[in-house]
Amino acid sequence: MASRVQSLDLANTSKVYHAPATIVQGNNSRLIHVSGQVGTAKDGTVPADYESQIHLALLHLRKILIAAGATVRDIAKLTLYIVNYDPAQRKHTRPIQRFLKGHRPAITLVPVTQLAAPGWLFEVDAVIACPEVPTVSPSAPTINLQASNSEVFDVAIIGAGLAGLTAAHEVLRAGLSCVVLEARDRVGGKTFSQPLLSTDGGREGGIAEMGAAWINDVNQTKMIALAQRYNLELIEQNTDGNCVFQGFDGKASTFPYGELPQSLSRANQMTLVRPSHLARRRPHPRHVRSRLPSPGHVHPQDTALDTMTFEAYLKSRDASPTALATARVWTRAMLGVEPADMSALFFLNYCRSGGGLLQMRSDRKGGGQHLRIRQGTQAFSECMAADLPAGVLRLKKPVARVIQDGPSYVDVIDGDGARYRVRKVITTVPSPALSQIHFTPRLHPVKEAWSQSAGYGFYTKAIVVFKEPFWIAKGFCGLAQSFVGPASVIRDTSSPPDNKHALTCFMSGPPGQAWASLPEPERNQQLLNQLGVLYSDMEAVDRNFVEVLKYDWTDDRWAGYGCPCASLSPGVLDTLGSGALREPTGNLHFAGTETAGDWKGYMEGAVRSGERAAKEVIGGDFEHCSAAFVRKGM
Amino acid sequence: MASRVQSLDLANTSKVYHAPATIVQGNNSRLIHVSGQVGTAKDGTVPADYESQIHLALLHLRKILIAAGATVRDIAKLTLYIVNYDPAQRKHTRPIQRFLKGHRPAITLVPVTQLAAPGWLFEVDAVIACPEVPTVSPSAPTINLQASNSEVFDVAIIGAGLAGLTAAHEVLRAGLSCVVLEARDRVGGKTFSQPLLSTDGGREGGIAEMGAAWINDVNQTKMIALAQRYNLELIEQNTDGNCVFQGFDGKASTFPYGELPQSLSRANQMTLVRPSHLARRRPHPRHVRSRLPSPGHVHPQDTALDTMTFEAYLKSRDASPTALATARVWTRAMLGVEPADMSALFFLNYCRSGGGLLQMRSDRKGGGQHLRIRQGTQAFSECMAADLPAGVLRLKKPVARVIQDGPSYVDVIDGDGARYRVRKVITTVPSPALSQIHFTPRLHPVKEAWSQSAGYGFYTKAIVVFKEPFWIAKGFCGLAQSFVGPASVIRDTSSPPDNKHALTCFMSGPPGQAWASLPEPERNQQLLNQLGVLYSDMEAVDRNFVEVLKYDWTDDRWAGYGCPCASLSPGVLDTLGSGALREPTGNLHFAGTETAGDWKGYMEGAVRSGERAAKEVIGGDFEHCSAAFVRKGM
Repeated sequence: MASRVQSLDLANTSKVYHAPATIVQGNNSRLIHVSGQVGTAKDGTVPADYESQIHLALLHLRKILIAAGATVRDIAKLTLYIVNYDPAQRKHTRPIQRFLKGHRPAITLVPVTQLAAPGWLFEVDAVIACPEVPTVSPSAPTINLQASNSEVFDVAIIGAGLAGLTAAHEVLRAGLSCVVLEARDRVGGKTFSQPLLSTDGGREGGIAEMGAAWINDVNQTKMIALAQRYNLELIEQNTDGNCVFQGFDGKASTFPYGELPQSLSRANQMTLVRPSHLARRRPHPRHVRSRLPSPGHVHPQDTALDTMTFEAYLKSRDASPTALATARVWTRAMLGVEPADMSALFFLNYCRSGGGLLQMRSDRKGGGQHLRIRQGTQAFSECMAADLPAGVLRLKKPVARVIQDGPSYVDVIDGDGARYRVRKVITTVPSPALSQIHFTPRLHPVKEAWSQSAGYGFYTKAIVVFKEPFWIAKGFCGLAQSFVGPASVIRDTSSPPDNKHALTCFMSGPPGQAWASLPEPERNQQLLNQLGVLYSDMEAVDRNFVEVLKYDWTDDRWAGYGCPCASLSPGVLDTLGSGALREPTGNLHFAGTETAGDWKGYMEGAVRSGERAAKEVIGGDFEHCSAAFVRKGM
Repeated sequence: MASRVQSLDLANTSKVYHAPATIVQGNNSRLIHVSGQVGTAKDGTVPADYESQIHLALLHLRKILIAAGATVRDIAKLTLYIVNYDPAQRKHTRPIQRFLKGHRPAITLVPVTQLAAPGWLFEVDAVIACPEVPTVSPSAPTINLQASNSEVFDVAIIGAGLAGLTAAHEVLRAGLSCVVLEARDRVGGKTFSQPLLSTDGGREGGIAEMGAAWINDVNQTKMIALAQRYNLELIEQNTDGNCVFQGFDGKASTFPYGELPQSLSRANQMTLVRPSHLARRRPHPRHVRSRLPSPGHVHPQDTALDTMTFEAYLKSRDASPTALATARVWTRAMLGVEPADMSALFFLNYCRSGGGLLQMRSDRKGGGQHLRIRQGTQAFSECMAADLPAGVLRLKKPVARVIQDGPSYVDVIDGDGARYRVRKVITTVPSPALSQIHFTPRLHPVKEAWSQSAGYGFYTKAIVVFKEPFWIAKGFCGLAQSFVGPASVIRDTSSPPDNKHALTCFMSGPPGQAWASLPEPERNQQLLNQLGVLYSDMEAVDRNFVEVLKYDWTDDRWAGYGCPCASLSPGVLDTLGSGALREPTGNLHFAGTETAGDWKGYMEGAVRSGERAAKEVIGGDFEHCSAAFVRKGM
């Protein structure tokens, strides 16, 4: 009789005398035992630091989960083995919490003096219990598949954000029919412009950007063209006056926009800044940027860079505590993520796609934060939606299932059970939200691994509205940066023509998360206190304060519970391939700002990704990528 | 409600506050959690070295598997705990691979600074998943049990090798009826004589022994009697001339048969050889033999000797690297096994059964390799088979099941479903192959433990045939020994009366295994190259080369996938008892060369074991051993 214990293998493991995992088949259930997983890169090397190894080991565990058809929620037990464990620095807890996404297995931690090979610092094994792999997953929504329900289109587009609406226009322009299925009751995705309270209590005039806020007119050609096409008014970001820097001690100091804060320059000039790169615009990006490979040198397949966290990368270059704190401020404001939580390659690649850190962090011409839209960035989508023929856009139609039965068509089924039979599907769903759609057949394991590995940090913008821009009068441009928080970065997002005055505070990373967990009055007061310190005028803050607006992206299901862009932990890019998310499978095409080559995570990237996916669909080159995919494996 | 968790105990464990294992009963399945097993002997002591402890711990685990009715293939997870783990010397991998026999569970290795008691170096725990113990195992071959098929005999003998055919003759001589069931299409078991290519391309005249090859006329009285009875011609092994020794550096040196190679004698004379034991015949045996307990001092129940590997034993006696390498050459040539893979007691006992290492390794009168059979050793069995009354021998009848329903008869069922109802069964099946027969009731756990613990090493003979015995002309006797391989030992196996000239190369242990995995042309060339080096004449090797013959015993199912004799890892003899394999259970008797007291593993032992088993059967003392068995436990 066949053994009930089956070895489970990944690519490259079948030659080893033991298996990465075994599956014990039970009645309607499976028990999976996982061998100790360590933080090795695909070439067998290990990065030098704990966090990087922990992320890689967890990625291996994730791949085993996917290969077994299990999920993180099926983990019954984890055993962690940590070399030279330091109780004062429990470096494993955050990566594991991020990995578990709220699931709470049993865990045992075993400090050890060494592991099976020199240099290994972390190992995790697991016991997993999951249902029998079903022919049709019991988690598949029960839907009424009446053929009479079926509408027929050339293309179905999932999501009516910038990527989806752009794709829809392109597809229609090519003479194809299409339907855009949007889960929300609004268009715009992660652009979300809320009207501000007017002085008389109404809300007309002036908006607060809860999501994407800025474009530029130099290299964000798609966005500036859209703004022109729809006659949207631009507001230039204010960079006149002093910036504020709040150091580890909580004390604020000022410096002119485009120069270095004194304390930083003194502390770091010698160690961090290459003379040839000294400040031309804002100071902080250059600190570290001068030590980063220039964008042209970052190769998405660079194993060494992808197997370490961005923090480990900085430390490997002898970054000082101040430089690390500066980098932390950036990654918090840009992605809500700590440098220790993401791959160095991912972040460098992300920066490259935005033209380099300097450009991305700049508020001046060509920078990432140069121009705002008076009507709000959501107006881009609203205008594009209004331009669509009737019947194309369907709001409140979350896609529940995507079924590829054969090579020539796809059935898309929405939450009400309505079926759309199409030749091609473009999904613009953020990768962390892909798991909310039930795909038949299952998404390729490589895409599942990407989707599950991609995660948001904590990222909330708090828009603090004031009666008057008191900071301007005091000679500030509004830009502030803090090592201590709760806000990491602050920018003036006033709309002078609407007589609306606001500071947008980036409440990101652990300080933002701690702040968000406070009760509201205390939360607002803590933020106002910080503003009082930064702009040296608590009285003016209190006197002018109107309201605080915030939107919890971490509760937003359709964004995949986060904003602005999912980041990747070490090992994902290197082992799955940088194009793994973008690559079409069968008649399924992938768009969304994450998939963009340029301005990834920005509105510009979303639009470009929509154009690219539409081109794939219109070209009709349906199957060309599958072979490359299979070859890649995991 | 009764607990679903049941403690599983072995002999002597029920007083401990925890159990060696627990069984969780599920629906048609059981989950078994095994306590950490360590390398303790039955007296609680532990050997000083890793390998010995690892073998003992695995034996304990094996006993738990057997007690639970599970097999190695049911292991889902192993966790290994190793004290002072050295990544450069992963001593656990080979024993564990041998234990797992190709099964690939999940494994986690945890280096630790100590274990629960001083001196413990290795611990293994396990999770096992296996089916509910079936009343009749679903693995039992489906057979047609028509009573009308049944033939009735006094005795059924399983296997028509030397043991089985000898037993058949004895049983018949005592006036009992018998049937001999042979799985192969030939008689002879592990004697297998292949005709050699003649000079005109035919194969008449001269044989190559793929299996057992030598007898002597001093103390192998049974074999010499058989040779005389069947008029088989004897060829004396050539010992005139020089032997060759190939050292670690690959260089060959010569020495007269019966003396020490110069390099060895210089290096080891002082440390390894007791003056009183200095060379009388061939040198190597005496090196170490002088340090071994003399045969009379080896007691099969010597716990200390059985709990260590032969390598650990040699090291405990300060054997030099050269002495260890010499011992390795012997164990490879004799059993295909590394000294680190078998019990010291087993090997010393094995040597004792052959009259001591000196006698076993000798090619001169009374030695293990003194006389060959011109017609081939398979002729012994062929002649005995021809002498049997018609209907006794049945070829191509592998026994599938042996059913002991009651005390007075046994049903033996072959692979075609034919049933033989007999009073007694003699099985001559090698112990590793016993698991291929389905016994009802199950074999006694002690026999299962023996059968599962017994394993072959890698052992292949390559017979290299030459036109002329060029080595004789150059003053060599043909005997060579190498530390580097691929051949470990080489002997002249020419048949001068047939004008056939051959060197038999023992391709054993890791070097032999590496060699066997090469593609054929490269494999032959590598071996010829070694012969060129050894006999200092590559040109003569190339000029005279005819062919290489080999037979892969590792693929031979009926031998239990190996040759010449299964060896035992530490702990088996000591805890199961040296007679555990031989002891009858019910009406089932056990023969085969492994069960012999003298010349175990040799043809002489096979014949003697057949006589002994026949005597048990003829004596009809059916039940006398069971009591002793139960008392012994495990």
